[in-house]
Amino acid sequence: MYKVFMGENPGDTTGDIFDRLGLDKASMMAFSDGIFAIAITLLVLELRIPDIPSHDIDTVFLPTLVDIFPKILGFILSFFIIANFWLSYRRMFSFIPTLDRVLVRLHIVFLFFIVLMPFPTYLLGIYGNHLSVVVFYALILTMSSLLLFFLWKYASKNHRLIEPDLSEHVIEYMSVRNLITPVTFLVSIPIALVNPLLAMVSWSSMLVTFPLVKTRYKKKFAGTQDT
Amino acid sequence: MYKVFMGENPGDTTGDIFDRLGLDKASMMAFSDGIFAIAITLLVLELRIPDIPSHDIDTVFLPTLVDIFPKILGFILSFFIIANFWLSYRRMFSFIPTLDRVLVRLHIVFLFFIVLMPFPTYLLGIYGNHLSVVVFYALILTMSSLLLFFLWKYASKNHRLIEPDLSEHVIEYMSVRNLITPVTFLVSIPIALVNPLLAMVSWSSMLVTFPLVKTRYKKKFAGTQDT
Amino acid sequence: MYKVFMGENPGDTTGDIFDRLGLDKASMMAFSDGIFAIAITLLVLELRIPDIPSHDIDTVFLPTLVDIFPKILGFILSFFIIANFWLSYRRMFSFIPTLDRVLVRLHIVFLFFIVLMPFPTYLLGIYGNHLSVVVFYALILTMSSLLLFFLWKYASKNHRLIEPDLSEHVIEYMSVRNLITPVTFLVSIPIALVNPLLAMVSWSSMLVTFPLVKTRYKKKFAGTQDT
Amino acid sequence: MYKVFMGENPGDTTGDIFDRLGLDKASMMAFSDGIFAIAITLLVLELRIPDIPSHDIDTVFLPTLVDIFPKILGFILSFFIIANFWLSYRRMFSFIPTLDRVLVRLHIVFLFFIVLMPFPTYLLGIYGNHLSVVVFYALILTMSSLLLFFLWKYASKNHRLIEPDLSEHVIEYMSVRNLITPVTFLVSIPIALVNPLLAMVSWSSMLVTFPLVKTRYKKKFAGTQDT
Repeated sequence: MYKVFMGENPGDTTGDIFDRLGLDKASMMAFSDGIFAIAITLLVLELRIPDIPSHDIDTVFLPTLVDIFPKILGFILSFFIIANFWLSYRRMFSFIPTLDRVLVRLHIVFLFFIVLMPFPTYLLGIYGNHLSVVVFYALILTMSSLLLFFLWKYASKNHRLIEPDLSEHVIEYMSVRNLITPVTFLVSIPIALVNPLLAMVSWSSMLVTFPLVKTRYKKKFAGTQDT
Repeated sequence: MYKVFMGENPGDTTGDIFDRLGLDKASMMAFSDGIFAIAITLLVLELRIPDIPSHDIDTVFLPTLVDIFPKILGFILSFFIIANFWLSYRRMFSFIPTLDRVLVRLHIVFLFFIVLMPFPTYLLGIYGNHLSVVVFYALILTMSSLLLFFLWKYASKNHRLIEPDLSEHVIEYMSVRNLITPVTFLVSIPIALVNPLLAMVSWSSMLVTFPLVKTRYKKKFAGTQDT
Repeated sequence: MYKVFMGENPGDTTGDIFDRLGLDKASMMAFSDGIFAIAITLLVLELRIPDIPSHDIDTVFLPTLVDIFPKILGFILSFFIIANFWLSYRRMFSFIPTLDRVLVRLHIVFLFFIVLMPFPTYLLGIYGNHLSVVVFYALILTMSSLLLFFLWKYASKNHRLIEPDLSEHVIEYMSVRNLITPVTFLVSIPIALVNPLLAMVSWSSMLVTFPLVKTRYKKKFAGTQDT
Repeated sequence: MYKVFMGENPGDTTGDIFDRLGLDKASMMAFSDGIFAIAITLLVLELRIPDIPSHDIDTVFLPTLVDIFPKILGFILSFFIIANFWLSYRRMFSFIPTLDRVLVRLHIVFLFFIVLMPFPTYLLGIYGNHLSVVVFYALILTMSSLLLFFLWKYASKNHRLIEPDLSEHVIEYMSVRNLITPVTFLVSIPIALVNPLLAMVSWSSMLVTFPLVKTRYKKKFAGTQDT
């Protein structure tokens, strides 16, 4: 057999040198972590107040903070959404020990939507609870969270890239978990047609649905432990 | 017993797969370090001078630097405050070998205030020693440093996440140390009501209180070594 | 013989202490990854819409997105180009286990063009398919991809920095692969003289040429396996 | 003896828990690398052209690039200066296996000047070769490079933090090397008083002095090998 140089990367398990990724999981994740960290920190650049004469600042400071409240809210919202994406992403990849070419490409598309995040945040910050920007924000969030869902579907299909003995319950739980965010944002779009503010409030339902789904699956899991 | 895949993450010690973090301490800290590094570097973007015709620059350069002195001071102040937060944060986590779900959440909230830092810095840079912006700056700093204090309280309570044999003296010392910053900024708020400049000067008291507390605890520690 | 301190860096294999790099491959790549991650994330800062009165936003939101379509297209284009540069760069260095002084210098110049990327992207975003900005964009891309090509040429020449037993087929394949991008962008410059939009369309030819070259080399490689 | 928890950090060799850094060399350098990478990438945000009507862009594109030539030159200059600082910094620390409290503090001050770099670059980009901005740029560069020199002096004094058997020649070579940059920028300040452009040209002398110093020390080193 022809000698094939396999490189020092542990994640590089392909036998075909022309299909090699030359990319291990740790490097892919370090790159992603960097992008997450930068995107989440750039959000603060949107926090600006209008020009105010210096001698007036003490009088108008609080009203000004109230005026830019949509910006502050958008900042807080996007910060915690990106932070939770990062946690979900990390949790998911703790089940995926290897990469392949398709997963890397899906990954890049997922990162595209993370990098994009400051744009809908900036729109939401300026135009607050108007239909068009709320729908746009919800659409971008639907897309990014759907990509996380697809990443999991691709990796877990027939145990393609996950551990062979990972239980079907966990696979199903992760799938359902990864559907909560896209479904919540998608459902909020028709709600926004009625009332954009209500749509934004509906996003907070995730504070309830995530623990609910976990509790449900813990019970289901407990039941199968006996068999 | 049902087979549970535990992942490659060393910090993942939970037995319950539905509660798993999928996040080790090293990754959490690398992510935080990235956010610290970005937030501290973005501060420089505030350093701008007003438009000056090119042929006048040599005449007005020094007066212009004096004009933007609050910006320069705000930049220096926030740079060294964030750098010291980073050092305190690193020191604290050198005592905490593991993570749990609550610590990660507190961590994310702490990072929120680090990411926010360029905003009060920008306000301080424009409006200098006015009551409202000084109080706002002090409030944000109180919040971020309190979170570091709560992180330690949570981790050290009943040796929850710290080494079982870490001495009570060290735990107490770290608690007191982590109270210096929030107390200093909180106390500066009533001072700002009298004189905002005095409040800013009062922050420098930390250059004395930190070494004082250390000396005091070194003595206390030395006394107990004999028992 | 004089005692020479070799340092802890594994990539530091020089025997002459005055020529030492003090830089291992992992650190060089981590630094580059950081620059890639920041440059790719900064692109989003160009996505801005003109000032629109708040009450008009729902009416003009879609037409505004259409108006800034060159910005959006430039953002998407540069995001995926930088991401693919990163993948190519990672793949290439998976074949290069060590660094030397020249490779580090070439590396720095390559990073210069990565850091520069947001500038032609910003121009393309504002002026869309005008001859001058399309040619400028193509020139910068030609330069950055040529540097990746030169990096490979330098490292692979006489197996200078690559594994001694890496096959000539792989070396040739990597050379040809690394020529696709510069040739595509260079050829698009005369096309832009005829029609700038056509030049931009011509860049998409890489979606075909990359798989074609791979298939061709896979066949060539398969043929030599018997000898 | 009282039990002292030493933490997992390899760089943490202090016996006194109250003086512990909780910071290993690798983390300090990763943090610094992040700051270097961000500061060097932020430079591109200064590359902007004035507003030009879209239909005029092809006619005025080249003249516009010429107009912003100081910005482009400032970008190139600062990029390669920061990149070389990074290489010098890495080379220096490859000789320093451990940290102490003072070195960390000097390090933080050094990072302050790296973070500051985009500010003088922005001034140089707008006002080109005017006395005040050239002197300001030279002063900041003198400060940052002097800090690198002091870092080395502190670490190498009586072999405080370097390997005990590192030769005096290498120590001296590194000291002299680290003086080239501050001396070059300091000497350029009186030159700027005569002619600011000449001062900027004088900076390029480093392209000659660095290799000269290396050659000189290589000879000196070769002479002592026999003794």
